[in-house]
Amino acid sequence: MKTYKIIVEYDGTDYYGFQRQKKHPSIQSELEKALSFVLNEPIRIVSSGRTDSGVHARGHVVSFSTNSDIERKNMLSGLNAALPNDISVKRVIRVGDDFHAQYDAKRKSYRYHVWNSPVPSPLRSRYSYQYTYELDIEKIKKAAKLFVGKHDFRAFAAKSRDKENTVRRIYDVRVSKKGNNISFTLEGDGFLYNMVRNIVGTLLYVGRGKFTEADVKTILRTKTRSLAGPTAPAKGLMLMRVIY
Amino acid sequence: MKTYKIIVEYDGTDYYGFQRQKKHPSIQSELEKALSFVLNEPIRIVSSGRTDSGVHARGHVVSFSTNSDIERKNMLSGLNAALPNDISVKRVIRVGDDFHAQYDAKRKSYRYHVWNSPVPSPLRSRYSYQYTYELDIEKIKKAAKLFVGKHDFRAFAAKSRDKENTVRRIYDVRVSKKGNNISFTLEGDGFLYNMVRNIVGTLLYVGRGKFTEADVKTILRTKTRSLAGPTAPAKGLMLMRVIY
Repeated sequence: MKTYKIIVEYDGTDYYGFQRQKKHPSIQSELEKALSFVLNEPIRIVSSGRTDSGVHARGHVVSFSTNSDIERKNMLSGLNAALPNDISVKRVIRVGDDFHAQYDAKRKSYRYHVWNSPVPSPLRSRYSYQYTYELDIEKIKKAAKLFVGKHDFRAFAAKSRDKENTVRRIYDVRVSKKGNNISFTLEGDGFLYNMVRNIVGTLLYVGRGKFTEADVKTILRTKTRSLAGPTAPAKGLMLMRVIY
Repeated sequence: MKTYKIIVEYDGTDYYGFQRQKKHPSIQSELEKALSFVLNEPIRIVSSGRTDSGVHARGHVVSFSTNSDIERKNMLSGLNAALPNDISVKRVIRVGDDFHAQYDAKRKSYRYHVWNSPVPSPLRSRYSYQYTYELDIEKIKKAAKLFVGKHDFRAFAAKSRDKENTVRRIYDVRVSKKGNNISFTLEGDGFLYNMVRNIVGTLLYVGRGKFTEADVKTILRTKTRSLAGPTAPAKGLMLMRVIY
């Protein structure tokens, strides 16, 4: 047996998220289909995590084990020939047999793109969320720093069972603006379901003046989902990389 | 009567080019449909030029005249509400009644994107052409300068009738590389049918070592289409702007 990790890029527009589903196309099922074909044996992958329906990835990581002796180079080209055009494998890396793409992940980095203009941009609409309200970028940048550190992010989780551990550490939140493009880059030790999209939705409310910094502090302290901003749409979100 | 020019952005993937066609969707027919609806009278537009099936635009310019007294701001928002998601109007500008989007155009600028890697990039594939061969970027940059100036570009025109004037002036060709992305930006007083895509196809042959600088000079001098490189695919091409 040999164990590999592979770095995957995909356009999530046409998929019902990463995780395998019975009736809908998923990134996982496409990857397993291609791997099973190229390695000529049934392959089940372990993923660094799930992404939601419509979310994209530049560096999603999955691992799997195989009896195949195929060379890495041939695995790479075989997989890219077998995969649909909206999914590609960027690298194939041999790892120790004890490697686990989910449990060994130390950090993840996500980026969210906002197109801040009353005029839509067809060339950006696939990967960014059009937000028509005027935004105060300095207020957003200041409020973004409130999320850095170890916090209970229960207020920013879509659905969390009471006993679930909703404490996560965010290492950095960077907000940058270039023309009408605003990007939010978040790096953390892990993210709850919808957490990035809920943080972005909340920061957009700060930028519009609907929330103050004090409001964000209250939301974090009271851990109340209903106080936080709306969930920003999936298409603006991209998993950038997973660090081991 | 009032005359306007509008700046249009579009993702050309799903259209059979700019020009109106009987049986296929075109950018022109979508624009005329939206304009006629918003201005409440039949509108025919004059375009700065045509783009091919699959070509995109960041700043295509068209003009039209109307009896409507609608404000520009309302025209802009009305048009963007009426247009499909892959076409938008970025600006509406009042111009003199003698303005003609095609005849008054002084310069046009196009950009072509190449993704130079054996590994496909799903996140870039909509707007760039994957080229798997290794390329010598310095050779490409040098050869690109050969196109600058006033030349007979007959060898780079898809179809040119014998009597057609195929002389054009190119003001600048800029080639830049960032990671695996290579972009070609061409500015000229006008471009023949497929000219940018044929120049790019030829420069890619230079980068691969199939053509030398001397070959490019010969192609320009002999004006022979069959000597030039292949036509690079439409999806990598974008009309950036039209200058009046």
